[in-house]
Amino acid sequence: MANKRNTPYTIKVEKMADLAQLMENEVLMAFASYTTIVLSKMMFMSTATAFYRLTRKVFANPEDCASFGKGENAKKYLRVDDRVERVRRAHLNDLENIVPFLGIGLLYSLSGPDLSTAVLHFRLFVGARIYHTISYLLPLPQPNRALAFFVGYGVTLSMAYRLLKTRLYL
Amino acid sequence: MANKRNTPYTIKVEKMADLAQLMENEVLMAFASYTTIVLSKMMFMSTATAFYRLTRKVFANPEDCASFGKGENAKKYLRVDDRVERVRRAHLNDLENIVPFLGIGLLYSLSGPDLSTAVLHFRLFVGARIYHTISYLLPLPQPNRALAFFVGYGVTLSMAYRLLKTRLYL
Amino acid sequence: MANKRNTPYTIKVEKMADLAQLMENEVLMAFASYTTIVLSKMMFMSTATAFYRLTRKVFANPEDCASFGKGENAKKYLRVDDRVERVRRAHLNDLENIVPFLGIGLLYSLSGPDLSTAVLHFRLFVGARIYHTISYLLPLPQPNRALAFFVGYGVTLSMAYRLLKTRLYL
Repeated sequence: MANKRNTPYTIKVEKMADLAQLMENEVLMAFASYTTIVLSKMMFMSTATAFYRLTRKVFANPEDCASFGKGENAKKYLRVDDRVERVRRAHLNDLENIVPFLGIGLLYSLSGPDLSTAVLHFRLFVGARIYHTISYLLPLPQPNRALAFFVGYGVTLSMAYRLLKTRLYL
Repeated sequence: MANKRNTPYTIKVEKMADLAQLMENEVLMAFASYTTIVLSKMMFMSTATAFYRLTRKVFANPEDCASFGKGENAKKYLRVDDRVERVRRAHLNDLENIVPFLGIGLLYSLSGPDLSTAVLHFRLFVGARIYHTISYLLPLPQPNRALAFFVGYGVTLSMAYRLLKTRLYL
Repeated sequence: MANKRNTPYTIKVEKMADLAQLMENEVLMAFASYTTIVLSKMMFMSTATAFYRLTRKVFANPEDCASFGKGENAKKYLRVDDRVERVRRAHLNDLENIVPFLGIGLLYSLSGPDLSTAVLHFRLFVGARIYHTISYLLPLPQPNRALAFFVGYGVTLSMAYRLLKTRLYL
């Protein structure tokens, strides 16, 4: 009788444990933390663009500068500014590099890598992208930005290589 | 004997239940639905760009306007148009905001949030992004678009905050 | 007594099996492989841009061309080049299409689709995006690029439709 009760009981425990369990996986928790940090950093670029657009009065849309003047007077704010374009390039570079990290990193995290190796990958990537942003916005002389770019790029390729080596299924 | 059969039987049940179970998680199902809607909306921007390029005969590549004329005659269609650039800016803004929502939202959904809180986040985000697109394309006067942007931005930051608060693992 | 040991033992087996199990799901393994390939292809676009920028001496930032000359002499390399812009447009189009594939494809893979149907979707998408890049960079005459675009677009919409049909939860 104890045995009969055992089966449904076990299943119930498992069902509840399941999702929590997925996030108790340490690699996935680390991935979640580093991803959240690097995506928040990327979101900061929107704020930086808005900041420079407002302080330098440089806009892309007529409705954005309507409060600075009417008609022809407002049109002079529809212009391109080096500083704003620099932030926008940094933002686009983030997108181009963080999207592959997101996709490949998530699947890599689910493929059961060694915890310390995985965390090393995540740390290097996040550090490299933060340094990339600093190099781009200050700006620092080259090859600071180029190096930051290639470290992040190499980390993502290294995870992609490990994924394809261990889990190739075409 | 009943007991000996019990162990493998239980495992088999669990294994089959497992993936289905993941998608039976209500938060993840809600995330899947709202994400699919907001990504489909983003994909619509490509169609809108193509529509304006074709109806206004504004192209970025020589091969795209080859059917409108030969040689020098075709080159006049290689131009920049306000309407097309507006759609492209709206599209890029979608990318910049939906990518963080995708990454942070997925990990947030796996971290076991309260269902009604999670659904509120998803609804606000999707509503804000749809309103952002409408404000950008009509366009509506500011601060319509700015407000839509900040609602979506705030929702993503709120999920990021909850993730880092409960699951920080560096 | 055997029964008392049974419960914790079963749970332990499940816990270990869990994550490995997720990646033993064949649809998810296939999604991981195809995603890694298409994201690596997208990352290649960064290298292509860097290659054309260096060989054609076309730069967007003053610090990037500092090694080619001082002051005014370096400024002449801050220019726009057709070839570089073409690669950048192809890269942005990749981003705009691979991001929805990533999000919708992952959730579709978790929703328990038929393996052969899922693999057909992934193959078509990856093939279409590779052909899109070739059509854009050579370039091939239209409608090569347009067709490649619409095949990838249709695949993503087909997965979105299946997700919303079977799992709508708003």
